[in-house]
Amino acid sequence: KDYVNGLCAAVKKAQSSLSVASAKQKNSAIITMADAIEANTELILKANEKDISLAGENGVPRTMIDRLTLTPERIKGIASALREVANLPDPCGNGTVTTRPNGLKISCIRVPLGVIGIIYEARPNVTVDAAALCLKSGNGAVLKGGKEAIETNRALMKVMKDALALTDISPDVIMLVDSTDRAATTALMNAVGYVDVLIPRGGKGLIRAVVDNATVPVIETGAGNCHVYVDKTADIEKAVKVTVNAKTSRPSVCNAAETLLVHSAVAEEMLVKFKAAAGKLEIRGCERTLKILKDATPATETDYDTEYNDYILAVKVVDSLDEAIEHIQKYSTGHSEAIITESVSAAQEFTKRVDAAAVYVNASTRFTDGGEFGFGAEIGISTQKLHARGPMGLNELTTVKYVIEGDGHVR
Amino acid sequence: KDYVNGLCAAVKKAQSSLSVASAKQKNSAIITMADAIEANTELILKANEKDISLAGENGVPRTMIDRLTLTPERIKGIASALREVANLPDPCGNGTVTTRPNGLKISCIRVPLGVIGIIYEARPNVTVDAAALCLKSGNGAVLKGGKEAIETNRALMKVMKDALALTDISPDVIMLVDSTDRAATTALMNAVGYVDVLIPRGGKGLIRAVVDNATVPVIETGAGNCHVYVDKTADIEKAVKVTVNAKTSRPSVCNAAETLLVHSAVAEEMLVKFKAAAGKLEIRGCERTLKILKDATPATETDYDTEYNDYILAVKVVDSLDEAIEHIQKYSTGHSEAIITESVSAAQEFTKRVDAAAVYVNASTRFTDGGEFGFGAEIGISTQKLHARGPMGLNELTTVKYVIEGDGHVR
Repeated sequence: KDYVNGLCAAVKKAQSSLSVASAKQKNSAIITMADAIEANTELILKANEKDISLAGENGVPRTMIDRLTLTPERIKGIASALREVANLPDPCGNGTVTTRPNGLKISCIRVPLGVIGIIYEARPNVTVDAAALCLKSGNGAVLKGGKEAIETNRALMKVMKDALALTDISPDVIMLVDSTDRAATTALMNAVGYVDVLIPRGGKGLIRAVVDNATVPVIETGAGNCHVYVDKTADIEKAVKVTVNAKTSRPSVCNAAETLLVHSAVAEEMLVKFKAAAGKLEIRGCERTLKILKDATPATETDYDTEYNDYILAVKVVDSLDEAIEHIQKYSTGHSEAIITESVSAAQEFTKRVDAAAVYVNASTRFTDGGEFGFGAEIGISTQKLHARGPMGLNELTTVKYVIEGDGHVR
Repeated sequence: KDYVNGLCAAVKKAQSSLSVASAKQKNSAIITMADAIEANTELILKANEKDISLAGENGVPRTMIDRLTLTPERIKGIASALREVANLPDPCGNGTVTTRPNGLKISCIRVPLGVIGIIYEARPNVTVDAAALCLKSGNGAVLKGGKEAIETNRALMKVMKDALALTDISPDVIMLVDSTDRAATTALMNAVGYVDVLIPRGGKGLIRAVVDNATVPVIETGAGNCHVYVDKTADIEKAVKVTVNAKTSRPSVCNAAETLLVHSAVAEEMLVKFKAAAGKLEIRGCERTLKILKDATPATETDYDTEYNDYILAVKVVDSLDEAIEHIQKYSTGHSEAIITESVSAAQEFTKRVDAAAVYVNASTRFTDGGEFGFGAEIGISTQKLHARGPMGLNELTTVKYVIEGDGHVR
């Protein structure tokens, strides 16, 4: 606890200079970090090999090892992502100015949040990514990655800090919680007064644990039980194309669809054509679905409540737009929801009544992403309503400060 | 607990219709409420008398009884505040539209937060004010007022709900937690899934209790240990005028100054002139202050950390802008901080380095207020950095929803 608070205090101190650094200084620091990462590819790969071999011995699941593994190409990718962050506009210092009737000039200016804690799984790219996004937005970063990546994270952090030492930015603005002890994570979640906001990045379990245990403010990200509703007026060709994309283009991510709702008037045509187009996919359907797709498995209540993140799709035939909206209201995690329809009024009703970060008309839920939204990069997708909702870019890593200029004004 | 959750669930249900109501419908409902409150002045005063007489018997402090007491004039004031809320622009439905290179149209639209819980002290005007601000911004409101005002709050709520019954808006969008039991407050603070955000309004103790005990997201408001720093280049006439206003125009409020920091080069002139202008005021000063103002009391460490909310001012003589900023960094609650200076570079350094919601140059901290900032009305002043910072108007009671329109777009 003392270790974590001390770490955070050091970051806070360094951040107070970072918060007034110019965009030019920050960008040049990020580019120096990118160059250093590429130049140290061998050192990083060597550390990564240790993690991978230990993970293999410990029986860590194949998919986790995949995400943990670095290659020269992946390191190149990480470095070029950094250069992209350097090229993004800096949100800090921008804002609005109002002059009040009494002559007071009120500026509302974007400033960094302060110190951001990031808790994430064994994904080394997040270490670099999160550090750069925080630095670019003027924030200090305290990073706690999955224990399986500790050697890789140490190496990456050393390379980035050594690079910062050559720039105008203090290496102390980024810190790794260099511990595989759970107590360190708990301390970070409760570092009130040291950490301004905590952003968990990862699966549902990790996010739940942080939300339940943190006393520091948390921005929830990620959980996505997303629906596609095919309305009775849908263009079935579009519906098939969008649903296939939403479900199968990358099932492991949070903006992938998990349930297809289809209006009974078009259910037969839609489901038959969808099945033919979808490729290998397990379908778990309601009774009416099973009558159309004989080899589907019966869906239980639990299926509609599950984020599979896999090649599995729950299907339900509904009799009205209302029934579809009610189903979504019941099971949605507020991430991304889509309607496929040619009816303007159905589209209006759906977008008005469905309460989610992103509501789609005739487009795939897969577009909920900082890059696709034009934010350049994202630190996560917020499924909460406070502070940020939807993809969080650099802007969402800032707050505002009012600066009021007068000439002896009193009230 | 079941009672409070049931109440919140009823509000949530009614709020889903309110969230799609037009500004016209909401404004007309608020005006109907204002008319009803004026028309029922007698009934409300009668209920208020019961509260006042009970409070008198129970030895409730004089200042609390003052704030609890209604008069025909105060009721007129409450009604006219409602009419002002009706006249404010509705934030809901406004936003920005971007068309992406692939033709996707992404609208970012303001929508209500959902159900807002307000926990406040025995101030009947807050019952009406908070109900109207929530309704106007499309939110449901669950109100828990101080137990000393229960009869008055019941009467006000009945009048407002009866008025809503005559309009397009369901009376269920506003609910009073009609209980003086502490367990009801606890239940409201933990109504996860029922309440989207909790806003405590009141003194430091109330806010601390809510922040510490709530599992629902909270927006902290209010605590204001505000400083005025008089720089060596200050125009002393402006400095005296601003400091007197910041301290004495209304000491009980959160944007009043609590500590005066004065540069040693101008300390003597400033303190002597200030003392002459300030009227009856207890000054608690550092050693150097005591040498200038012989009848001041010595200040302890605690004094610099105290929000007096009274005719008391802590004073410290400092030797540099740096020392002033460090003092503020140590003791500030991040509410409002002011510098009095004629130096552009001192003003720049102060506004850059001081980390508060509102930073003033040559103006009184008393301007930190939704009305003074041009927001029309406020639900509180946020001293936190997430979601809202500074005065919170209708805009801060909303979140955004992304609506994405395509034509069969896939990724």
